[in-house]
Amino acid sequence: MEPNPIDLIVTNIGQLVTCAKDREDGAESALGLVEDATVACAGGKVVYAGPSARMDDSLTLDDNAERIDASGLLVTPGFVDPHTPLAFGGDRAAEFASRCAGATYLEILQAGGGILATVRATRATSEESLVGLCVDRLHRFAMQGVTTVEVKSGYGLTIEEELKLLRAIARAAKISPVRVVATLLGAHALSDEYREKREHYVSLVCRDMIPAAAESGLARFTDVFVEEGAFTAQDARAIARSAMDHGLGLRMHVDQLTAGGGAELAADLGALSADHLEQVSPDGVKALAKSGVCAGLLPTATLYARLKDYAPGRALSDAGAILALGTNYNPGSAMTENHSLALGLACLQNGLTPAEALLAATDGAARSLNLHGEVGLLTAGSRADLIIHKTDDYRHLAFHLATSHAAVVVAAGKVIHRAEPILRNCPG
Amino acid sequence: MEPNPIDLIVTNIGQLVTCAKDREDGAESALGLVEDATVACAGGKVVYAGPSARMDDSLTLDDNAERIDASGLLVTPGFVDPHTPLAFGGDRAAEFASRCAGATYLEILQAGGGILATVRATRATSEESLVGLCVDRLHRFAMQGVTTVEVKSGYGLTIEEELKLLRAIARAAKISPVRVVATLLGAHALSDEYREKREHYVSLVCRDMIPAAAESGLARFTDVFVEEGAFTAQDARAIARSAMDHGLGLRMHVDQLTAGGGAELAADLGALSADHLEQVSPDGVKALAKSGVCAGLLPTATLYARLKDYAPGRALSDAGAILALGTNYNPGSAMTENHSLALGLACLQNGLTPAEALLAATDGAARSLNLHGEVGLLTAGSRADLIIHKTDDYRHLAFHLATSHAAVVVAAGKVIHRAEPILRNCPG
Repeated sequence: MEPNPIDLIVTNIGQLVTCAKDREDGAESALGLVEDATVACAGGKVVYAGPSARMDDSLTLDDNAERIDASGLLVTPGFVDPHTPLAFGGDRAAEFASRCAGATYLEILQAGGGILATVRATRATSEESLVGLCVDRLHRFAMQGVTTVEVKSGYGLTIEEELKLLRAIARAAKISPVRVVATLLGAHALSDEYREKREHYVSLVCRDMIPAAAESGLARFTDVFVEEGAFTAQDARAIARSAMDHGLGLRMHVDQLTAGGGAELAADLGALSADHLEQVSPDGVKALAKSGVCAGLLPTATLYARLKDYAPGRALSDAGAILALGTNYNPGSAMTENHSLALGLACLQNGLTPAEALLAATDGAARSLNLHGEVGLLTAGSRADLIIHKTDDYRHLAFHLATSHAAVVVAAGKVIHRAEPILRNCPG
Repeated sequence: MEPNPIDLIVTNIGQLVTCAKDREDGAESALGLVEDATVACAGGKVVYAGPSARMDDSLTLDDNAERIDASGLLVTPGFVDPHTPLAFGGDRAAEFASRCAGATYLEILQAGGGILATVRATRATSEESLVGLCVDRLHRFAMQGVTTVEVKSGYGLTIEEELKLLRAIARAAKISPVRVVATLLGAHALSDEYREKREHYVSLVCRDMIPAAAESGLARFTDVFVEEGAFTAQDARAIARSAMDHGLGLRMHVDQLTAGGGAELAADLGALSADHLEQVSPDGVKALAKSGVCAGLLPTATLYARLKDYAPGRALSDAGAILALGTNYNPGSAMTENHSLALGLACLQNGLTPAEALLAATDGAARSLNLHGEVGLLTAGSRADLIIHKTDDYRHLAFHLATSHAAVVVAAGKVIHRAEPILRNCPG
């Protein structure tokens, strides 16, 4: 069979990051850096990504192919954000200001703040409005080069409201060029109705929400927040069982505020991803590395929580764990979709190298979404998601902190964002 | 005399921050919030900033006046960044990566890294090229709404090279719409030539650099880095004397890495600004408050230095010190011009409220540059520097972290940046 003719070609790439090499020799080697490179795409997939000189002569160019001269700049895979509960209503700026002025957690709760404030506001927001909010937020991710986003529900906390959120996410995903992977986070918190009925609520999640989310095809994963005051290890086991019964993958929030053996539990339950990990124990680090559960670093959430200790990215990497990096963009505890901030904090606070951070934001995050080989890398057959950056050195993505370097963003072979003219952010 | 006719009018402002009220009743009161407001400008100055209903009928509108409908959004004064040594050549991304991989400070120095790497690269960069670099960097500030920037030299460290930098800064200032205030930072570090001759170098700064910078009109301030391994209190006294003799204001880097009584010294020397302050003592806090020396918070630099403790913004504010907030954008220890990140970190790490952070980024920074009443506020007679933000609540500027909300930026009465369409970043 003839291959499809090339419909998008990016030439004159000064530094190409493919993320398509073995991880055995370390993160920088896994980035698969290529100088003087070309990426060719057809039908939304990559057909070639490598040295310009070695491109297969048999590949033909469509007459109407889009040609982009990368001007010697850096090209990476589109970023993958594996942890963003971005479907919510309401606004908690006033609560933030109160916190800054010294209000305690209890005072904020008593004033009607915290996560349940978002739950009330989200319930009061129509599905239609949520679709618009999600599309806007996905657009802001896209402009930074994030082409795949995991979106969690979790601000409904009843079956009707969680499904409303998942439907809104699905509708937004149809509109947005960003690829969306949806996760049911029914076990996010206990709403007022279930405050004293945790076991009852967990039953509802297991017996009703998970089956409904799975049967409707609206979620690919389920997630559970294991924490004092939220859900227990026993709850997580029940949720994991239900998820497995209904074909949903398991993600977990663990060891964020208290060391609860959450990483070990995630390994035991065969979760795909264990996120947060600020308080993970040395045994938990080993358990993640051994089990292959991806370790999700969310340093912007650590910053908002003003925790002294960030998740031990260095120890996790040294132990051989697969790292994933995300923003955790959410209405209270990480009100920032600045993906570049996450990259820089991963270095400055989690102890990663720029290569490790970039790998965690691409291939690592894709692995944590069970999309390894599809997104987060540039190789023949992968989705044609890429970023031309305003720099020629991948290390600037973390070093030049909180700065979007995205000059051109391509998703599924189409240009979805272009910041013209292509200027370098970091002239040498 | 007839007032000039209005040539720019911004109407339908949902929330106007003037920063023109007394500070006695706290920061939020000092912001002077006005709902349903109008700002009118003529000849680059504000002629009215207040409630739409109370605008003076005698003000006339020029036929060609630019009219901007703020769509109910937030308008603030343009931001003022009081501490940015942005005139430099070279690139230290590789050094950053080495640091992340565990290289010690000594290893980095031995590998030719650190501040002297930037000095070598800057000396090797032509004045012409430096002008271009400064213009690009000022442009990136402008796009975020920063309309006044203090720019330090400090990477030349000989009289010829420091003057080359100051000339480049002056030439860039003529090209850029951003207002630039230049500072001679001859006493930034000791170059290799003067490594063992600190006293000799300080003499050079006092006898040659300061007079030359003052006589040429290329600098308004001089600055000195008081720190172990850099310059001593005695050096600072000599520099302060020379600065006073030659009509330059004094700025100081103090108490960053070691508690050295730098704030007390700044108060004693009558400095306009004492910046960094991570290690300031309780007595130093009192000294700043009592003397009126502005306390310059640079939280992005604290982040890059991975210091556990940020400058005690809360204590400084409670003591009554005037706070100023900046990015410290520089090639090694704060490679970010993200001004919104500084605003958020000022809350999350320095302990300010969103109101205090915003006041520090506008009127406070203007005071630290001796520009109180001219910039950093919106009142009749002030420079027409303003930002229309993609939100209607000033608290979002800090809460929605590291996100530029600037939709329209006006400097000296001219629109210098416009992000169309005006979308809200934070729909309610």
